[in-house]
Amino acid sequence: MDIAIIGASGYTGGDLIRLLLTHSDADVVAATSRKEDGQSIWKMHPNLKGLCELKFSNPGIGDIEADFVFLAVPHTVAMNYAGELKEKGIKTVDLSADYRLSKEIYEKTYGVEHKAYFEAPYGLPEIHREEIRKAGFVANPGCFPTGATLAAAPLAEKANTIIFDSKTGVSGAGANPSATNQYSNVADSLKAYKWTGHRHLAEMKQEIKGLGSKAVCHFTPHLLPVNRGILTTAHILLDEPMTTEEVSETYEKFYEKEFFVRMQDPVLASVRGSNFCDIAVEAENESTRVVAVSAIDNLVKGASGQAIQNMNIMCGYKETDGLLSAPIFP
Amino acid sequence: MDIAIIGASGYTGGDLIRLLLTHSDADVVAATSRKEDGQSIWKMHPNLKGLCELKFSNPGIGDIEADFVFLAVPHTVAMNYAGELKEKGIKTVDLSADYRLSKEIYEKTYGVEHKAYFEAPYGLPEIHREEIRKAGFVANPGCFPTGATLAAAPLAEKANTIIFDSKTGVSGAGANPSATNQYSNVADSLKAYKWTGHRHLAEMKQEIKGLGSKAVCHFTPHLLPVNRGILTTAHILLDEPMTTEEVSETYEKFYEKEFFVRMQDPVLASVRGSNFCDIAVEAENESTRVVAVSAIDNLVKGASGQAIQNMNIMCGYKETDGLLSAPIFP
Amino acid sequence: MDIAIIGASGYTGGDLIRLLLTHSDADVVAATSRKEDGQSIWKMHPNLKGLCELKFSNPGIGDIEADFVFLAVPHTVAMNYAGELKEKGIKTVDLSADYRLSKEIYEKTYGVEHKAYFEAPYGLPEIHREEIRKAGFVANPGCFPTGATLAAAPLAEKANTIIFDSKTGVSGAGANPSATNQYSNVADSLKAYKWTGHRHLAEMKQEIKGLGSKAVCHFTPHLLPVNRGILTTAHILLDEPMTTEEVSETYEKFYEKEFFVRMQDPVLASVRGSNFCDIAVEAENESTRVVAVSAIDNLVKGASGQAIQNMNIMCGYKETDGLLSAPIFP
Amino acid sequence: MDIAIIGASGYTGGDLIRLLLTHSDADVVAATSRKEDGQSIWKMHPNLKGLCELKFSNPGIGDIEADFVFLAVPHTVAMNYAGELKEKGIKTVDLSADYRLSKEIYEKTYGVEHKAYFEAPYGLPEIHREEIRKAGFVANPGCFPTGATLAAAPLAEKANTIIFDSKTGVSGAGANPSATNQYSNVADSLKAYKWTGHRHLAEMKQEIKGLGSKAVCHFTPHLLPVNRGILTTAHILLDEPMTTEEVSETYEKFYEKEFFVRMQDPVLASVRGSNFCDIAVEAENESTRVVAVSAIDNLVKGASGQAIQNMNIMCGYKETDGLLSAPIFP
Repeated sequence: MDIAIIGASGYTGGDLIRLLLTHSDADVVAATSRKEDGQSIWKMHPNLKGLCELKFSNPGIGDIEADFVFLAVPHTVAMNYAGELKEKGIKTVDLSADYRLSKEIYEKTYGVEHKAYFEAPYGLPEIHREEIRKAGFVANPGCFPTGATLAAAPLAEKANTIIFDSKTGVSGAGANPSATNQYSNVADSLKAYKWTGHRHLAEMKQEIKGLGSKAVCHFTPHLLPVNRGILTTAHILLDEPMTTEEVSETYEKFYEKEFFVRMQDPVLASVRGSNFCDIAVEAENESTRVVAVSAIDNLVKGASGQAIQNMNIMCGYKETDGLLSAPIFP
Repeated sequence: MDIAIIGASGYTGGDLIRLLLTHSDADVVAATSRKEDGQSIWKMHPNLKGLCELKFSNPGIGDIEADFVFLAVPHTVAMNYAGELKEKGIKTVDLSADYRLSKEIYEKTYGVEHKAYFEAPYGLPEIHREEIRKAGFVANPGCFPTGATLAAAPLAEKANTIIFDSKTGVSGAGANPSATNQYSNVADSLKAYKWTGHRHLAEMKQEIKGLGSKAVCHFTPHLLPVNRGILTTAHILLDEPMTTEEVSETYEKFYEKEFFVRMQDPVLASVRGSNFCDIAVEAENESTRVVAVSAIDNLVKGASGQAIQNMNIMCGYKETDGLLSAPIFP
Repeated sequence: MDIAIIGASGYTGGDLIRLLLTHSDADVVAATSRKEDGQSIWKMHPNLKGLCELKFSNPGIGDIEADFVFLAVPHTVAMNYAGELKEKGIKTVDLSADYRLSKEIYEKTYGVEHKAYFEAPYGLPEIHREEIRKAGFVANPGCFPTGATLAAAPLAEKANTIIFDSKTGVSGAGANPSATNQYSNVADSLKAYKWTGHRHLAEMKQEIKGLGSKAVCHFTPHLLPVNRGILTTAHILLDEPMTTEEVSETYEKFYEKEFFVRMQDPVLASVRGSNFCDIAVEAENESTRVVAVSAIDNLVKGASGQAIQNMNIMCGYKETDGLLSAPIFP
Repeated sequence: MDIAIIGASGYTGGDLIRLLLTHSDADVVAATSRKEDGQSIWKMHPNLKGLCELKFSNPGIGDIEADFVFLAVPHTVAMNYAGELKEKGIKTVDLSADYRLSKEIYEKTYGVEHKAYFEAPYGLPEIHREEIRKAGFVANPGCFPTGATLAAAPLAEKANTIIFDSKTGVSGAGANPSATNQYSNVADSLKAYKWTGHRHLAEMKQEIKGLGSKAVCHFTPHLLPVNRGILTTAHILLDEPMTTEEVSETYEKFYEKEFFVRMQDPVLASVRGSNFCDIAVEAENESTRVVAVSAIDNLVKGASGQAIQNMNIMCGYKETDGLLSAPIFP
């Protein structure tokens, strides 16, 4: 199967190529970039030297010849391409935010008009696998909502309040130099950002509600001195107290068939570079609070790996194909 | 004034000496350590070479000759010394947990019998300055409770639930090598620990309640790849919603006379090495949640600096004496 | 092919298992550890949870049933097992130092008697591939000598002095907590260690001399705040000056058939987790100095990856089998 | 004494202000910045909030009213101001490169014409204290040449070759975001840069030659995942071998009166935030190589601290005034 990656010069583009190198059937035949047109892939992704001889190209969207497309362009840009890809019948995973929300909530959250809206399944396989299987176009979830939703999903129905306190690595801010990813602004330090108004909250609310929950959701992200990874600490306030044993069983059962969700102490280092989401859960004594923590690699389960997982489901491959390289620890 | 530091080979001992070097009147005349007896201070604290010619000593508690003592030994050890120091009338700040809580709560929290209990003021000057001023023995607060209490205090009365989500640097785990502070278990990573049962929660509950609050308090700490610092994100659920303007004013007013509390975007790098606590606060739209975040250096405002601040208050020095070296950024 | 790893609880053991998961034919059937006997592999290597269901075992060396053995035990321990493995005809790669040097130099360098000496090829495939191919027992090189030898080999014959200034990540100090790998002794810092007397110098001298060089070799390592990787800056003083063009051509030619040596700007991040050795070279104007820099992952090309590369050569597999997972950047 | 800092928005400007806060007599009365004109100092230097109420200003050079000026602008800019300051008789330390070298070598090294050349002492007090004492204008050394010269000076006369292999923290690349200081390009990684052609080599050559040495000097810098600090490993090849005892004595004697040079194991963490230069030295057995390593904080002894040390000497203050805050470890 021939794959095109639209917008391949960033970190998610690089990780799509890295992971697809181990896929049994998917060949990246086009990696587009306006800025890097004509350059070897490894000029931007030096880790891939010797493994991928492709060059960046810059075709018009109509000239893309591929069996499958990953849209790895920013939000508001993806919507320019989505319609044509859909019309041409090219299966697509969109890594932008453009098709994750209803039109109304998208426009309110992102403050722009959506010029080419249609409905697409939300590409979180652990929740929406069957819709994804039938889809030609899937909206890949945001990095924070992936970790947050997986952390809270098994208890969503029993919760009245969920506070997601997330901590992300710097690669989430992209590869372009900025004050946000300037080394000395981050290293040996920590800060919160967008304390109450982060756009990803809309996805969390949609997914938690979709699970039949009435819980009020809150979200505050923090910027860690870490390359990759999101740890989400979900403080879940239940209607009725539960024991740690009860909540652990609930999670074990909820995820028992999920290869990529591992029930173990979530530590960023244990999922580095991989599509795993490690989760554990603990109930507080004499309290209705449960703490559920998830660890993902923001560029893999939070972006490129999940996109490939969605592709595998959409195209009938084994869901783990291309996603079996073990995390790197230490 | 002659100062003795009991238990001076660890990080808090080192920072007591470092900071007292700039004090106008306090001279460290004894720095005790059983293990390092006879060694130069700089063997354990190489930063102090050339600035402090003292050697570690190992006197019996009865042989300590000093006007003021800092107890920088572990909990359950401090109680062995406290009584005698009090009897001899040597003013003391105890950096251990032994006198921070009521006897009952201490024994329940730490699972040991308290053999030498008496009441002592809780040494958080921004809350208990007047009691500290009159005291001969002060219990220096824990690092987490310092950041947490300062973050939530101005809204304590209006809150019904407070979730403290704290992130600490590795120096909080002490200088002795362990799996907790092993480099590759921490670097480029993050994890939560003692998700629901951390002992410092007892101090937070005591202080928040002492401020007239009925709020239920929760606490989960995380271990950051950072040398120094604690960032505490306090998710405060109010009875009635407030605006960001209202909560900001509340905080500005609460702390307007406090030199060491700065109302600015809290970032660990901005307080590194100093006694400052940086705080900011934001109310969520259409919600009763307020997010208050505090940043401190765990070894300074969270331990040694606050201990010196207490000493200054107890002894009639300017409260900032020895505490004016600026934070180091970057 | 059934693989046994003797001494599998450390970082090199973990990376052997991680990499062999992607090998087309090698199955790890035994992973031994005295301390962890009976524990699941993922208790020590949490990254491998869900990927490897093996438990640590603790058989006698005579009870090992395997077609191939990796000895991942410390030096002086490997020699206890080597003879029996050789007698039984089990092909083996020894990751310890016990068979890398001549008996005389080993005993002088390590200050112990070698009780079970025999000659074995030095497992640096780029230099000794043909000897390795025929061998039943191969001595896997040290991490520093791998990076150093590859950096200098193409110019060895023309050099009179080579100074290897190496910088290693912390994982080189092993997984056991110690002052060396204590976070705050390493993070946001740097130091040199064993400035003149590091044991690995003996391997560098042996290999450089073996390439027909008369060069005097020097070596100083440094400890980086980095998980994985060794960057070696080889300051090579030539008899006669060369241009950057000439030395680059020399290197390109020397390594033109080597998959794992990539001629590109060596940066630790570009080889993270992989078996690649990135090298570049530059000649100083008006000088006989050439600077050659190599970057490897100390646990992969510097240990486990190279061991698998040797296994592949010894057993007739494709040399890259199990070693094609791309480096993780960022 | 009134101080003006020309170009105060960068890291060296911030550290000048930070350190001068503890000076007994120097008051910063003007901190200029074109971009930040009118902003509070703490907007750029948040560590200084509450300690310094100054605002950035943007006066013409003729309008500067101060007793002493620190020029903290880039090279080629400083020369525009130097002449006028000299004429007006305002004592000045220039932190740029514009007056560190002879006109000829400056123009060759920096590839620009020097429009306003005059001779100024090279502000390395440990070597040029007497010239500095008499000067009205001092050229503050580069960060790398400071660490390198101090590491090699005591043996300069006996050396025939010196290779300076330096490793710098990221703050050396300035506060403006760029690919060089982008977090994920640096963190958990290492690379060499300007392997043979770094401009600072000219200063090293000048100073080593000035000490009566005939040694050929080489220099390669590396970029560390560290905020502050330069570790320089000087590989010194002597004409005749010496013992470690002999070289240590030579260093002890050379620096015996120097407060800011400490003979102890050089580790970046031990000098963090301070004006110290830690040095140790070791001779290799059966070799003419000596390894001398120095550790400095690049922003302090490598820039702002040394500038204040020079000011103190030029103005008759105690040389340590404003420079006694202890390094922060951990």
